Amino acid sequence: MLKVFSFKDSDGSHLDKNLRGLIDRRKRVLGPAYQLFYSSPLHLVKGAGAVVWDAEGRSYLDLYNNVPSVGHCHPRVLAAMQEQASAINTHTRYLHEKVVNYAERLLATMPAVLSNAMFTCTASEANDLALRIARDYTGGTGVIVTSYAYHGITSAVAEVSPSMGDYVPIGRDVRVVPAPRQNTGSSEQVGKIFAEEVKAAIKEMRRYGVKPAALLLDTIFHSDGILTDPPGFLAEAVRVFRQEGGLFIADEVQPGFGRTGKTMWGFERHDVIPDIVTMGKPMGNGHPMGGLAIKANVLDKFAHNAAYFNTFGGNPVSAAVGLAVLDVIRDEGLMANAELVGEYLKVGLQSYATECSHLGEIRGSGLFIGVDIVNNNGEDDPEAAKRLVEDLRENGALIGVTGPSASVLKIRPPLCLSKEQATSFLSIFDGSLKRCFAEG
Amino acid sequence: MLKVFSFKDSDGSHLDKNLRGLIDRRKRVLGPAYQLFYSSPLHLVKGAGAVVWDAEGRSYLDLYNNVPSVGHCHPRVLAAMQEQASAINTHTRYLHEKVVNYAERLLATMPAVLSNAMFTCTASEANDLALRIARDYTGGTGVIVTSYAYHGITSAVAEVSPSMGDYVPIGRDVRVVPAPRQNTGSSEQVGKIFAEEVKAAIKEMRRYGVKPAALLLDTIFHSDGILTDPPGFLAEAVRVFRQEGGLFIADEVQPGFGRTGKTMWGFERHDVIPDIVTMGKPMGNGHPMGGLAIKANVLDKFAHNAAYFNTFGGNPVSAAVGLAVLDVIRDEGLMANAELVGEYLKVGLQSYATECSHLGEIRGSGLFIGVDIVNNNGEDDPEAAKRLVEDLRENGALIGVTGPSASVLKIRPPLCLSKEQATSFLSIFDGSLKRCFAEG
Repeated sequence: MLKVFSFKDSDGSHLDKNLRGLIDRRKRVLGPAYQLFYSSPLHLVKGAGAVVWDAEGRSYLDLYNNVPSVGHCHPRVLAAMQEQASAINTHTRYLHEKVVNYAERLLATMPAVLSNAMFTCTASEANDLALRIARDYTGGTGVIVTSYAYHGITSAVAEVSPSMGDYVPIGRDVRVVPAPRQNTGSSEQVGKIFAEEVKAAIKEMRRYGVKPAALLLDTIFHSDGILTDPPGFLAEAVRVFRQEGGLFIADEVQPGFGRTGKTMWGFERHDVIPDIVTMGKPMGNGHPMGGLAIKANVLDKFAHNAAYFNTFGGNPVSAAVGLAVLDVIRDEGLMANAELVGEYLKVGLQSYATECSHLGEIRGSGLFIGVDIVNNNGEDDPEAAKRLVEDLRENGALIGVTGPSASVLKIRPPLCLSKEQATSFLSIFDGSLKRCFAEG
Repeated sequence: MLKVFSFKDSDGSHLDKNLRGLIDRRKRVLGPAYQLFYSSPLHLVKGAGAVVWDAEGRSYLDLYNNVPSVGHCHPRVLAAMQEQASAINTHTRYLHEKVVNYAERLLATMPAVLSNAMFTCTASEANDLALRIARDYTGGTGVIVTSYAYHGITSAVAEVSPSMGDYVPIGRDVRVVPAPRQNTGSSEQVGKIFAEEVKAAIKEMRRYGVKPAALLLDTIFHSDGILTDPPGFLAEAVRVFRQEGGLFIADEVQPGFGRTGKTMWGFERHDVIPDIVTMGKPMGNGHPMGGLAIKANVLDKFAHNAAYFNTFGGNPVSAAVGLAVLDVIRDEGLMANAELVGEYLKVGLQSYATECSHLGEIRGSGLFIGVDIVNNNGEDDPEAAKRLVEDLRENGALIGVTGPSASVLKIRPPLCLSKEQATSFLSIFDGSLKRCFAEG
């Protein structure tokens, strides 16, 4: 099971009657699969930019949610949605200009060789489709992922998501490799170690008669702990895997759409061109959209023989929303903002780390930052990370945790977070640090 | 490959320059997996109720699209979407009243034993999740579907969708049974034949060491040719399958949400209570939504051990849209309308059938009607069905085809189709019949 700060029923006695009532009703109808963040779950009713409000009118700086990536309730995105939804919403078996415009605009942000786009409603569906195509193209079934990867929730994709926990089996033809955790050394050095792991996994796979199909990687390794540096370390592993006839699928759900600041896509930081790029979360700023970009020659056989139709995927409303998101990223300079404010946040966090020994390594690119929380012996400290996240929530700031032991702070705000908001966050963070790590 | 009326590039010379240009651009970026209806593809730009308009301002009576089930661009659905999207759009790890309200309202339309709801973004995801849960609950892997079933597009669900064609393999533990094609006799008689098929499939499955997990059926068998009668024929097969420890999953994507007129759900016509109900297309009137309703005891183990999180599934905007759709079905009496207008259409079509020997059996319930098109020897005639559908499109009415040989007319309009619109359709249909089946 993914490690999240889950409300436990036994925690509920401190909650007010209304909240408790809503939680009880929710539990009755949604059942036990649905989890809630925080020991006092948040009832959010309003959002704007990088701020959200709860039902009592309390505001929170949102440094967690990457889905409303251009800002909660962005007026341009809302207007585009409403305009198209008022005209018509159909599917891709009729012609519509917007899905064509959107595919052209989206592909223009990528290397030209990624010349075809396909649309789904979620990134799970996009990764599922990417695996179907990769297996068809290569004739293989073997997939390599990192040991704490998360790629989604369909049957096929849950099998390549070891972070789902022991109860959800990894697929028989799937092999896991340690994520490139080393943050020092040249990209060649780190890349070589990672490539050796991939090489060993291929050898082991082959020993079982399994032919490689896909190396599937989140290019920011967010569930493995947010592993951003040194840029370039992916290239050698991709080269090795391709030599064996397999494809490289870049899962851009987390780093994509400008989050890392300098580049639109995570794979660009590593100077590799994927065979398939999968996308989701921020693509529609909350509107359910996913998709993939793919080399035409990789798609060709599958497309001609198996076809693909996704009822809602690529509908005119989704296309209008997707176009508006791309417009806002460009017109509001959100990539430059992510770079600037991300760097500012990182420097601020670093300054606290020099004073507080419980802040370990700080990694990140643009507005995706990970901070290791460690105990006095320098070991991962998930309990302390949890205390920090809970204290921040109590004091008006939302972040998350990630990593194999849930001890890495995950700071991943909407891309419009301003420097002033970052300053406010740092000040709240300072207070939380002092409360959570007060000696005695 | 699903049989649809696909535009072929070689057909394109008759199209005007603008349309041809859009098709070429589309082909370049979306690639060969995307198909278009009609030899002259439709470029739809506007919709209202059961009418759509193309880019030249020509209107068409829409008797095909079941996704905008309460009518294209319904103002109440649009308003609900816009209102919630302007407030906040988050996910199910925060509390929100609307997803709870929606789950309660949705479950209230079903037998009480189906007490939990889970939300996805597509019916493919819902069927995929239902299979994961069924396999977890039963410890089995075997699935029985009908021989021309379609249940969606993820890896796991494509494996139980034989209508995808020979290139997409049926799963090793999946067995197909002929759909209950017989339209005469008592429900007991038809039901017994179907149950015998299911029994034989279980026996064959067991012979290979495969334990039954799910009997997965579209309760209106739309891709098998729209097989509605006699109501009640499902019960015995479900009983037989359950006796073997398996679950019955009712795929309500096609018959659900009032389409069949008298009942909200297709399974009600057969007087059976499923273990899991899956939903999609009409659920959000075009907004990407899917979900399932499930018995709490069936969900329990999976939910506690594997958890489930779908980023967009059950978000507040989707919940608001889903609530509005339920409101409209109720307040506009759309089920009664479906029953009334559906019956009126059926009677009208029957009257043509007495005069035109190419119209074979007419089946249907509410606003889901299938008409067999046959040649002079009474055999399926897909070419004639295609000619009819193309001629109807040229004359301002949209329908589709379905069935194993694509020879069954599929008449499945938005539920708000009025009697007057049905009369107009019948008159257009009469003309098409005369043109398509003119002797000499």
